[in-house]
Amino acid sequence: MDRLLAEIREQPAVLQRLLEEEYSNIQQVAQAIREREVHYALIAARGTSDHAATYAKYLLGARNRLPVALAAPSLYTLYESPPRIRGGLVMGISQSGMSPDIVSVVRDAREQGALTVAITNNPDSRLARVAEHLILCRAGEEKSVAATKTYTAELMAVALLSVALAEDEKALAQLHTVPEAVQSALTLEEQVKGVAELYREMQYCAVVSRGYNYATALEVGLKVKELTYVSATSYSSADFMHGPIATVEEGSPVLLIAPRGKALDDLLHLAEELRARRANLLLISDARDLGRAPTLLQVSPRVEEWLSPMVLVVPGQLFAYHLARAKGLDPQHPRGLRKVTETR
Amino acid sequence: MDRLLAEIREQPAVLQRLLEEEYSNIQQVAQAIREREVHYALIAARGTSDHAATYAKYLLGARNRLPVALAAPSLYTLYESPPRIRGGLVMGISQSGMSPDIVSVVRDAREQGALTVAITNNPDSRLARVAEHLILCRAGEEKSVAATKTYTAELMAVALLSVALAEDEKALAQLHTVPEAVQSALTLEEQVKGVAELYREMQYCAVVSRGYNYATALEVGLKVKELTYVSATSYSSADFMHGPIATVEEGSPVLLIAPRGKALDDLLHLAEELRARRANLLLISDARDLGRAPTLLQVSPRVEEWLSPMVLVVPGQLFAYHLARAKGLDPQHPRGLRKVTETR
Repeated sequence: MDRLLAEIREQPAVLQRLLEEEYSNIQQVAQAIREREVHYALIAARGTSDHAATYAKYLLGARNRLPVALAAPSLYTLYESPPRIRGGLVMGISQSGMSPDIVSVVRDAREQGALTVAITNNPDSRLARVAEHLILCRAGEEKSVAATKTYTAELMAVALLSVALAEDEKALAQLHTVPEAVQSALTLEEQVKGVAELYREMQYCAVVSRGYNYATALEVGLKVKELTYVSATSYSSADFMHGPIATVEEGSPVLLIAPRGKALDDLLHLAEELRARRANLLLISDARDLGRAPTLLQVSPRVEEWLSPMVLVVPGQLFAYHLARAKGLDPQHPRGLRKVTETR
Repeated sequence: MDRLLAEIREQPAVLQRLLEEEYSNIQQVAQAIREREVHYALIAARGTSDHAATYAKYLLGARNRLPVALAAPSLYTLYESPPRIRGGLVMGISQSGMSPDIVSVVRDAREQGALTVAITNNPDSRLARVAEHLILCRAGEEKSVAATKTYTAELMAVALLSVALAEDEKALAQLHTVPEAVQSALTLEEQVKGVAELYREMQYCAVVSRGYNYATALEVGLKVKELTYVSATSYSSADFMHGPIATVEEGSPVLLIAPRGKALDDLLHLAEELRARRANLLLISDARDLGRAPTLLQVSPRVEEWLSPMVLVVPGQLFAYHLARAKGLDPQHPRGLRKVTETR
């Protein structure tokens, strides 16, 4: 078995470890945040970690009522005119903790006197050193170029922070159901492999979801690009309706991630619309009774919508992996990518 | 001549009118903002207007040092748990002013006591009524489904607000050079038409820029999707390096928007990388001396980088228009789109 597949399968154990070993530290970070008058959060991240930041935008927004801005690192590195931080909490999220532009955002914020938090898998990284507070992902070394276990670990770190900020015991109990739900999603692998075969000739596709799982659409789209070189484009369903739906014609591949919960009606409405246009629809969902089913990866309904991004991304990771295999590509060595991308 | 082309060509006049008729109002809005203790801005927008919001994120960040968050409207409409606004300026940008989710964000913010501003082309819209302050685009009715003149008008409105906030007379003078620069960009039309012919068989492409012109990459990508049904995906060059570049192989079409200024080095570095991969590179640039030139749409170097999004988008609009024509499509009636998309 190759490393990437091993890392995908390691996710339940990684999430369990994070729950057990990091929560008390995260409670202290949350305490420090509560003691400051924080009006909004600014989060800096790139690539996969930027999708964890997108999850944070929805989660901290909906459950902690904290507005979240995603930083534009080029304001720091290219234009050398960073925004003034007043009343802001500044977080950097980076698996490696080595991306210079992400480090710049956090360093500048700390110099301005803002409260800073790093979420990283690397305790010895520049990002870890430059931030006042540190949340560790505890995912173990990730050797594959394509990030998988560090992504779900970053989501879990964000979810733990949200729960700690709200001091919500009931939500904490819900969080503890996630590793088992991820384990259950992994059992779909054989089915995913068969579905991937069907999409072997795919050259481009749209990946669509909404709300908390907009992050999932972004991340599944990126895995598909990195591993299979298919030009995947990710959308929130609302943005998709504002123009890009025009690209859909008979046979156009669309991956729709449709979680149970508040976003479901909208996404099923879109599914109807896509069926009418005879799109080639692949549905990843933990909802039941989906009507006339297109190609469906049915995930067991075990977690609340706000936690489902950690679960629904898993069939997407497996899909990207097996699609690469079906295309005769080596998912271990995506062409032209390195593990650490040093953008400024 | 059809309406869409007429509206594209109308842009210099629209921008000139906005400069002449709206600045004194915008100065009053800026005065109201300066009187409040504003720590950050939250902007709600969809589709094309969301790209104007992205421009605002860079412009207000770099030139006014104001952190900008782009709202997640589903927090209001789906999850019914809007973020708490303290110290925030909330802006809604919408051509029609009719999108219920954008109206929700602004209405909620005003109810919370935040300072609210609407940027819209429709003074009678719900958005115009619900916001405390109103900035009008004065673009005249836009009849085409694909937004063009209202997009550049929204950019100009944002730029005027930035200048008024900074009380920067020199910058105001620079703004007055934009209509002529846009007029000059329009003279490329015959050349664009020839280039579009070369891309007639294109099914997907990447559209890349960085910094202020990340907005241009997003908007050109959307025009290409709406008018030609090509699956275009837009990136900042930094994000592109973090994974999606793996999709580029020999012949892959990439549109690179490379403005003079701080982002240029990075973008030319990417151009080299893309040449090495034998991508099919189309460059839109107002820089000179671009080395071994691929297919190049050379825009006259007339404006500063922060204003170039209003200019460099024009060859992109024309490219999308003429690519649609080359493909035998009707740019006047994109399939499955309406002028006003009512997402909740």
